[in-house]
Amino acid sequence: MEAFVEKYTPPRIDGDFEGKHIITVEQFNRSDLDIIFDATRKIRRGVMRGEHGIPNLCQHKVLAFLFFEASTRTDLSFQAAMSRLGGRVVGSSNGISFSSVYKGENLPDTVRAAGCYADAIVLRHPMEGATYLTAYYLDLLRNQIGSQPVVISAGDGIGEHPTQALLDLFTLLDVTQRIDGLNITLVGDLKFGRTVHSLAKLIGLYEAPHTTLNFVAPPSLQMPQKIKDFLDTRPVKFTETDHLADVLADSDIIYWTRIQEERFENVADYESIKDAFIMTPDVLAKAKKNAYLMHPLPRKHEMGTPADHEILDRDPRSVYFQQMQNGMYVRMALLAKVLGVTSI
Amino acid sequence: MEAFVEKYTPPRIDGDFEGKHIITVEQFNRSDLDIIFDATRKIRRGVMRGEHGIPNLCQHKVLAFLFFEASTRTDLSFQAAMSRLGGRVVGSSNGISFSSVYKGENLPDTVRAAGCYADAIVLRHPMEGATYLTAYYLDLLRNQIGSQPVVISAGDGIGEHPTQALLDLFTLLDVTQRIDGLNITLVGDLKFGRTVHSLAKLIGLYEAPHTTLNFVAPPSLQMPQKIKDFLDTRPVKFTETDHLADVLADSDIIYWTRIQEERFENVADYESIKDAFIMTPDVLAKAKKNAYLMHPLPRKHEMGTPADHEILDRDPRSVYFQQMQNGMYVRMALLAKVLGVTSI
Amino acid sequence: MEAFVEKYTPPRIDGDFEGKHIITVEQFNRSDLDIIFDATRKIRRGVMRGEHGIPNLCQHKVLAFLFFEASTRTDLSFQAAMSRLGGRVVGSSNGISFSSVYKGENLPDTVRAAGCYADAIVLRHPMEGATYLTAYYLDLLRNQIGSQPVVISAGDGIGEHPTQALLDLFTLLDVTQRIDGLNITLVGDLKFGRTVHSLAKLIGLYEAPHTTLNFVAPPSLQMPQKIKDFLDTRPVKFTETDHLADVLADSDIIYWTRIQEERFENVADYESIKDAFIMTPDVLAKAKKNAYLMHPLPRKHEMGTPADHEILDRDPRSVYFQQMQNGMYVRMALLAKVLGVTSI
Repeated sequence: MEAFVEKYTPPRIDGDFEGKHIITVEQFNRSDLDIIFDATRKIRRGVMRGEHGIPNLCQHKVLAFLFFEASTRTDLSFQAAMSRLGGRVVGSSNGISFSSVYKGENLPDTVRAAGCYADAIVLRHPMEGATYLTAYYLDLLRNQIGSQPVVISAGDGIGEHPTQALLDLFTLLDVTQRIDGLNITLVGDLKFGRTVHSLAKLIGLYEAPHTTLNFVAPPSLQMPQKIKDFLDTRPVKFTETDHLADVLADSDIIYWTRIQEERFENVADYESIKDAFIMTPDVLAKAKKNAYLMHPLPRKHEMGTPADHEILDRDPRSVYFQQMQNGMYVRMALLAKVLGVTSI
Repeated sequence: MEAFVEKYTPPRIDGDFEGKHIITVEQFNRSDLDIIFDATRKIRRGVMRGEHGIPNLCQHKVLAFLFFEASTRTDLSFQAAMSRLGGRVVGSSNGISFSSVYKGENLPDTVRAAGCYADAIVLRHPMEGATYLTAYYLDLLRNQIGSQPVVISAGDGIGEHPTQALLDLFTLLDVTQRIDGLNITLVGDLKFGRTVHSLAKLIGLYEAPHTTLNFVAPPSLQMPQKIKDFLDTRPVKFTETDHLADVLADSDIIYWTRIQEERFENVADYESIKDAFIMTPDVLAKAKKNAYLMHPLPRKHEMGTPADHEILDRDPRSVYFQQMQNGMYVRMALLAKVLGVTSI
Repeated sequence: MEAFVEKYTPPRIDGDFEGKHIITVEQFNRSDLDIIFDATRKIRRGVMRGEHGIPNLCQHKVLAFLFFEASTRTDLSFQAAMSRLGGRVVGSSNGISFSSVYKGENLPDTVRAAGCYADAIVLRHPMEGATYLTAYYLDLLRNQIGSQPVVISAGDGIGEHPTQALLDLFTLLDVTQRIDGLNITLVGDLKFGRTVHSLAKLIGLYEAPHTTLNFVAPPSLQMPQKIKDFLDTRPVKFTETDHLADVLADSDIIYWTRIQEERFENVADYESIKDAFIMTPDVLAKAKKNAYLMHPLPRKHEMGTPADHEILDRDPRSVYFQQMQNGMYVRMALLAKVLGVTSI
């Protein structure tokens, strides 16, 4: 499946979203991001005010869900996004995966089945390259049935999760009002975490001068060289450390993620570092008064105990619930754009 | 999770449903019930006539389903209710439970995720107190994201199932046209059956003078003292027996439920009583000609064999299918009211 | 469950679809098929042009999905069909089956539950006769609740799959523009394959003179005598062989299906014949230049390797993707008709 990452090149957006597959953040430039974020703000305002135009934007349109891997948040927020645009949702994560396993079906045929019925497909798959493969076969299908179904990635393996990165950057801009000159600290498993890969790249693509990314991870889980090479070509600086204390007091944004025990070869290595990667009220106390704490959720022990959650959740610097809700609005904007809506 | 039953107090309705969590029948008074039942009748008439106004009542609104326990009837009827109001449904029972188990997620975060995307949540959970917990955390979320998602209980553990009690009482009033002076007989496992707990309390809250509740159960499965204490404070009488024959001939309503073998410490105890708790055509023959037989469904051996079902189903006194259908209409009324619809 | 095939007789359509259960192709005559296929063409044109009338055809209507067996394509296409008509979909394949297994519920009660909430039910079930049983109990339910829910079969066991046959015949007519005088070759497991049973009968019912059906199957998997007896009463000829070469060069339509190893008593028997029942580019090379290759999908080894798929898919004679998409349009037409839409 990874072969399709080479075989298929996602189209650049360059101001025109209609009919384009959404696979990687690398398809976007600064201007594309501004278009999506402007649309997101308009849609959010419209939903909050109960404007009548919003639920008419995607009437007639059908979105198929192919989730070969469970994801409460991504699943629910895409469903809610399409529903609030007036569009329809078909398919269900378990229905699809069970059926396919049962019949030993192949992915090229399954995605083309969905493409025969729907205007767009949201795909989540455990294997890297699954979205590239889907885009490749949907393009073939266009020749056979005439219509133009698009695929939107909802995460494939350790590959990308572009809509998560979009909602992260939108939220970051939303709370800070500016990105130029910020100190943005990404913490956790930076080697395998696709969320932080996509976000780091997207910040690079946003072309924010004087912005610094701080990568805080255990030495064995640092940001991949590929991402760092990419950032070297962009107007953004980055630092690396395994001590949060080195950068915490200067951070404007603290983006927290989980470190999984399974990533370590032996338990002792994990035990030796894990306490340094747990966000608690005591840790947050050392951050700036006007910093913001983000997290892609779901969270586990990396944000301490349930009692810690209670305290962190009430801290005005914690914006992960806004971040979660923005996910729906960003996905509304993206769906509307790729489905050809021109009025937002 | 049970701790939240103490920690969170559900709001009384007192004539104003908008934005209120629906957790227990104790939130309703007589006047609230009359409002819901009036709305139910209007909606039922509207749906049957295909009135155009009904599918516009909840346009723009999204209802999230969090079912951590399967329930064909409750799930389908809530889905149909929201759909017939023009609203949208997101989430799926298995999707959610699988996903949450998979990621080891905690309930406070899952319900807040749904609350970020939806206007209301229908929650079904195997543990008592889950709905109280949900209401508690949704109230916290209001401070963080500004919007006001509500939770409606679709049953939590051996706790309550308030919409089942509402549809039961609605059906009872619908077929008898009055409740004052009726003899209402509840049969089966009255100790663990949440359906009968909620219904008994709701009849008490309806303030129907001269109404008598007859509790028919094996001695070890009688109505809990807590419920009886509650009824002592209300204008309703009750009797207790383990012999249906004591009350059958005088009963206006016979509400039948199942007794589960697992509730008995040894099989012999169960075997000794089970035949007395099976409704068959022969038993129904001894009831009044104008009595009504109700059952919350699904049913198993407690209504005899499939051949017995065939005969019971054709008896005009059997109203459990109407009861099932009324479930959809009552839920439509309740959803419309908590979502702020003022026109019904 | 099979007993209901005798106990319940599906109504003939005879020009009037409204409120009729759809269980077997034997309910249709030539004129009924022309009505459905005309409506299918109108709807397809309307969807492709984005006509505003289409999503209003089934507003107010609710379709319940009871899938006791997984089927990606049938499930998704029925969901998309109802959604594109503006109707609503409730239930989910896994939700239902899990719930029913869990509670040990019986099918007569489950289908009546769905019938209480929905205007129509799509049923897929592993046991033959399940759709007949459903129709029988829904008719009983009409007496109890007044409304008229209909069931549409999405396949029951080795019984029929009527909408698959409708979409197959529609596609065949769509690509050839005529059926009179055609050579239609059905290949694969003709004994247990319900798709080919329904299609053969439907072609017989379409009353196409001078049309020849060629049945190509291993001797132990030939078309059942019952189907052949039926065809003897219709204006259609048929031949039988176990060698594709006997008929391939003269075939206008080649309808390919899978042979399952499990159908053979010993592996050697299967191994000895299987290569003769694999469609590859080399086999297709021997077919007419203006022949068409159909397949109900999903496909496995009976269409060769993934590399074979790539070549077959690009051959203009392969119409299985059009066939798949037509499935949605045919189901839209059928749903609209049974739900009483008169404007198409």
